[in-house]
Amino acid sequence: MSLNARIETAVAAALRSAHGADAPPQLGSALDYAVTPGGARIRPTILLSVAMACGDDRPALSNAAATALELIHCASLVHDDMPCFDDSDLRRGKPSVHRAYSEPLALLTGDSLIVLAFEVLARAAPDGPLRGMELVRLLAARTGMPGGICAGQGWESEPRIDLSAYHRAKTGALFIAATQMGAAAAGQEPEPWAELGARIGEAFQVADDLRDALCDEGQLGKPCHQDDLHGRPNAVAELGVAGAMSRLDDILSGAIASIPSCAGEAALAGMVRAYADRLVPQGARRTVPGE
Amino acid sequence: MSLNARIETAVAAALRSAHGADAPPQLGSALDYAVTPGGARIRPTILLSVAMACGDDRPALSNAAATALELIHCASLVHDDMPCFDDSDLRRGKPSVHRAYSEPLALLTGDSLIVLAFEVLARAAPDGPLRGMELVRLLAARTGMPGGICAGQGWESEPRIDLSAYHRAKTGALFIAATQMGAAAAGQEPEPWAELGARIGEAFQVADDLRDALCDEGQLGKPCHQDDLHGRPNAVAELGVAGAMSRLDDILSGAIASIPSCAGEAALAGMVRAYADRLVPQGARRTVPGE
Repeated sequence: MSLNARIETAVAAALRSAHGADAPPQLGSALDYAVTPGGARIRPTILLSVAMACGDDRPALSNAAATALELIHCASLVHDDMPCFDDSDLRRGKPSVHRAYSEPLALLTGDSLIVLAFEVLARAAPDGPLRGMELVRLLAARTGMPGGICAGQGWESEPRIDLSAYHRAKTGALFIAATQMGAAAAGQEPEPWAELGARIGEAFQVADDLRDALCDEGQLGKPCHQDDLHGRPNAVAELGVAGAMSRLDDILSGAIASIPSCAGEAALAGMVRAYADRLVPQGARRTVPGE
Repeated sequence: MSLNARIETAVAAALRSAHGADAPPQLGSALDYAVTPGGARIRPTILLSVAMACGDDRPALSNAAATALELIHCASLVHDDMPCFDDSDLRRGKPSVHRAYSEPLALLTGDSLIVLAFEVLARAAPDGPLRGMELVRLLAARTGMPGGICAGQGWESEPRIDLSAYHRAKTGALFIAATQMGAAAAGQEPEPWAELGARIGEAFQVADDLRDALCDEGQLGKPCHQDDLHGRPNAVAELGVAGAMSRLDDILSGAIASIPSCAGEAALAGMVRAYADRLVPQGARRTVPGE
């Protein structure tokens, strides 16, 4: 089964488990709407790639970890789109959850998806309760306070922002979760995998800045030029397109160099390169002098 | 150590773990504000009472379970108070989180507390990973979809409400979590403890209806007469004060009768009666004819 098929099968099973005869139908429908069809599923793909590089000896646990991570990511998109944050009407080319349903249902959708993420891990844990608890711990640490995506989003409410803590938490945290959870699901120590996740997160941030600056709303499936609009720091504003591309290449080299020694090291390096190419918007490379 | 001291000590330790040098200070402060000083801590008190009735052989795990449950309850209060739900300015006698901080910080406070709840369980799990995973599963099932408090809140967005599913999920779920998690933390089968939790939840709902109808804002520490205002079903509107009191007594007798056979059965029955007396507003009994 391809990585993508593994992810979609596991995500669909998790969503089915959130439905029931006694459940409010609209909230059930909003959960499905928020999670499918998905975006690039880049975080769970990285997670499974790391798990496979580490032997993937408990595939059900890896699938649960990938699903849990994607559910947290989807929850964060639903809440971030709400009027009190980005007030975005569009997400993945369709109305955002609070526009398609309502603000109360968007709030509950995010909450329910966060809870479902941990439930998915708990359900898979008979396959290895110690690994299961480690996965809960890793996911929680990269989601909540003091160092997860909630903390990252919280920095936007501060009068003085700690930029490096902001980026590390807001974008980096779930990539670090991806590499660490992939290793932990396969029974490896998660700590040596943190740097790969952090560097992929940095690369993703720069690629996102390039897309935000160079793409239009139709290409993105969400509003563009949001960084300018909200006065958020952006690598393109700071370095120009060529400078941002050059930084991206540096970060990727560092990411690949950081991969801990393991059986699937070469395949994992290939995956990182391939993903990076997909992330860079068409037109960015051709603006770099000499290329 | 008294139950109350156990709970406050464990809750305070959990909150400390959510702070850090890299964390946004306002969000950190909002987490503390949402959780302390607490209300009656009734759900964790029930949880620890059940754990003790079952032997409480892993007190660190029981404390973690009690803390996790209280954090979820506090998260639900923060989100329920927000403008898109009850739009409450007051909670536990002080401004609600979105009034004291902001709407973005209230949303993130709820999210962070949900995550922290599961993190607390994961951290305590080396004390018993199988029990830890069972606690994650039980808490998630009573928090999210399809049968937890998110589902209960979700019913309020439906054009046609399933009243019994609504009450079971909205108020009952966290009481069922309390009794089941107390048993599971002490290594007992959680299933036989569900009925006690469900009946305590029903009793709490009737007592809450009595308080909403009979108390003023100063006594409640939150807005009163909310059921009338929002057209929500209410036992006092349906049965009158005397009828509601009589139903409460019936439910409590059923609750006590449902307690599974265990070493601490009598003490637990006493705790249920004592809590029920505290819940009933002064003046409710004296309106019952013949008393």
